[in-house]
Amino acid sequence: MKKTFFTALLLSLGGVVFSQSSDELQLKAIYQSALTKGQGYQWLDYLSNQIGHRLSGSDNAEKAVQYTKAQLETLGLDRVFLQEVMVPKWVRGAKETAYIKDGKNKIEVPICALGGSIATPKKGLLAPVIEVHSIKELETLGTALKGKIVFYNRPMEAEYIETFNAYGHCVDQRSSGAREAAKYGAVGTIVRSMNLRLDDFPHTGNQSYGDLPQAQWIPTAAISTNGAELLSKKLKENPQLQFYFKQSCEQMADVLSYNVVGELKGSETPENIMVVGGHLDSWDLADGSHDDGAGVVQSMEALRILKQLNYKPKNTIRVVLFMNEENGNRGGKKYAELAQTNKENHVFALESDSGGFSPRGFSFECNDEEFAKFSSWKGLFEPYLIHSFVKGHGGTDIGPLSSKHIVKAGLKPDSQRYFDYHHAANDTFDAINKRELELGAATMTSLLYLMDQKGL
Amino acid sequence: MKKTFFTALLLSLGGVVFSQSSDELQLKAIYQSALTKGQGYQWLDYLSNQIGHRLSGSDNAEKAVQYTKAQLETLGLDRVFLQEVMVPKWVRGAKETAYIKDGKNKIEVPICALGGSIATPKKGLLAPVIEVHSIKELETLGTALKGKIVFYNRPMEAEYIETFNAYGHCVDQRSSGAREAAKYGAVGTIVRSMNLRLDDFPHTGNQSYGDLPQAQWIPTAAISTNGAELLSKKLKENPQLQFYFKQSCEQMADVLSYNVVGELKGSETPENIMVVGGHLDSWDLADGSHDDGAGVVQSMEALRILKQLNYKPKNTIRVVLFMNEENGNRGGKKYAELAQTNKENHVFALESDSGGFSPRGFSFECNDEEFAKFSSWKGLFEPYLIHSFVKGHGGTDIGPLSSKHIVKAGLKPDSQRYFDYHHAANDTFDAINKRELELGAATMTSLLYLMDQKGL
Repeated sequence: MKKTFFTALLLSLGGVVFSQSSDELQLKAIYQSALTKGQGYQWLDYLSNQIGHRLSGSDNAEKAVQYTKAQLETLGLDRVFLQEVMVPKWVRGAKETAYIKDGKNKIEVPICALGGSIATPKKGLLAPVIEVHSIKELETLGTALKGKIVFYNRPMEAEYIETFNAYGHCVDQRSSGAREAAKYGAVGTIVRSMNLRLDDFPHTGNQSYGDLPQAQWIPTAAISTNGAELLSKKLKENPQLQFYFKQSCEQMADVLSYNVVGELKGSETPENIMVVGGHLDSWDLADGSHDDGAGVVQSMEALRILKQLNYKPKNTIRVVLFMNEENGNRGGKKYAELAQTNKENHVFALESDSGGFSPRGFSFECNDEEFAKFSSWKGLFEPYLIHSFVKGHGGTDIGPLSSKHIVKAGLKPDSQRYFDYHHAANDTFDAINKRELELGAATMTSLLYLMDQKGL
Repeated sequence: MKKTFFTALLLSLGGVVFSQSSDELQLKAIYQSALTKGQGYQWLDYLSNQIGHRLSGSDNAEKAVQYTKAQLETLGLDRVFLQEVMVPKWVRGAKETAYIKDGKNKIEVPICALGGSIATPKKGLLAPVIEVHSIKELETLGTALKGKIVFYNRPMEAEYIETFNAYGHCVDQRSSGAREAAKYGAVGTIVRSMNLRLDDFPHTGNQSYGDLPQAQWIPTAAISTNGAELLSKKLKENPQLQFYFKQSCEQMADVLSYNVVGELKGSETPENIMVVGGHLDSWDLADGSHDDGAGVVQSMEALRILKQLNYKPKNTIRVVLFMNEENGNRGGKKYAELAQTNKENHVFALESDSGGFSPRGFSFECNDEEFAKFSSWKGLFEPYLIHSFVKGHGGTDIGPLSSKHIVKAGLKPDSQRYFDYHHAANDTFDAINKRELELGAATMTSLLYLMDQKGL
């Protein structure tokens, strides 16, 4: 493999072999460090199994802030610090219950409140159901929706190769389905979980009432894909059936929380800052090992590897563990705001927030010229089976960052399994493969290294 | 994605757009069929959960023959038939037991007999232990090995990116460790499981006494990686400790079994045969869902897809479900022998025997000119995130096949998780992701299509 790679380099690059060869050696050292000396898996074990879910504003989220700060302090970085940020606090309350009421039959189905939803009345909500497959369909139904529970049942489409595309074409049902149905007098919404497979896990996730007056807010919950299939089938048999659900979630006052930042000072242009990060908060149904414990520990690992290899970056490199990506992105916004206040010049930001699966490549937010340049590095990544360089979204946390000129990138892991776990009770540590996680960390570190050396 | 791909085609191929475009459409139809109409996952569910392990010569192996034959018969192929093959029958017997005897302390550890091993004496075997890290090391130790249990403890190396390379550098301890140690008078061998992670699963697999006289055969077993770590640690504390293990495995007389073959007759050159296959047998500790239930159903799925798309192949295309890859390759040898007897002209053989994980590419056994040709098809696979075309091993089952000229290829799935499950009790259906399995089937079908259209 190495030999082939080197031959390819010689063929494609002619005289520039010396510098490429040193890059090749550096990437080899990075991957080797990740695979043989990695700490990320142990960090994630602690975050997942000793701390647990890290919903913004929860005690666990604060424990995660303190734990990751303390771990970063062991790495010998130049600076580790916290950034204060006020975050929303939404609490789920007692476990939700739901059933299909078909005549005298009650068939229980697994649901969970969507983040930001209001509670049902204390005794729960019982109403007839109308199944729809899009928000647009509400227009046609109009007044027929009054007093009804709207059941959004458009599945994620299997034929998309990248599952995030299937998600993108479905998630409006979850994020704004309640707001839109409420406008027609619906009393609640039930949304098919954003999950490509059929199983019994309801998947939570954020939703927003937007500028709808609070008096019009209606409770909304996700139903497992098996539950959705069953409800749809039962509705065909008996369009008069009713659905019952009960949830006691509540939006509390905002609370103080933190972004966690660790820094390696640049040796040549320390005023230029490069960020690598993920988000420390998670949903509350599981450990959030993939979303985004993986991104957190991979970002920490990037700095551990650079330190262990005694790499002196030209630019300042920061790991940023953002708070509150899931339901507000307050950490991302705060980080960007402080960067502007402090007149910091961010030149690059790299995020991992697509799960800890085998890395396949990156998506770059950059211009065509830059993309051509980054694409010329692909040969260096081939021995590590990283092939997919595309233009696209970098990440939600780094989204608000702006500078005179900044390149953003997102790690692209294999996406096939992501929505099996996303925001569900099975997003736990046992769904993480150590090597896949480590290869992702090495891939990120390699891009940071190349950006630092020749990206700017 | 599609747009980018098409632009790339236009840029790279200029005038040849029409024919490429029809290939593009065909691949799109293949992937769509696999992802939305696939039967492979249900077939594998049945093989794994209704039949279970399929060790050669077992009743389950025969059930699998009948089941897959019956399923192939539902696909409307031109011919479905069995090929008789005599296979070895090795039975594990009662569950193995083992402990470290450290003074009066007995610490139980998880082991399993290696395939083809003899039993221990009925009361088990208790002996002092010598830890080694290679077969070569035996030479140095020489007579010190007499009466000892040799403990092979060289781990799979984490820094290999492809885990099959790590396996290749380790598996001699399992396959010939007992034979070699017996030559020095050792009484048994215990081999660290071929597994990159630390866990409690012992991994079985084949071993051979070669031409060693039967009187010198010694029992051999695999120990879990955690068990190996513990044994090594305890040996450092007390080099005099003893190891006990008991296993009652037995080699029986050969029994009659079958390869299962389904065929689509070629419309232009039916005398040219293309094979797609996997192996129907599995080890006996689990369902063998990855090894090689996945390859079996992906190969069946290839023919289902071609039929469903009403594709009329130029060449004859056969699915072959080989018997006895794990401990003899009798099915592969018999298929090749019959091909020669019947003067069949095999032009291409494609195997899937590396797990049902996200497909990454193929390894080709072919000459340089052919490899350049196949590599020119890579652009067609890019929308499906298939990038890795390399020269290398096709597969064990198709290994014995020879013809005037034959190209062989193996599907290369992501290898990171493979050795978590390989030959162990956790190689079960729940470790299969439906989409990953289906993408592998579509990738194989696409290569078959291209080979049929322009490969020969």
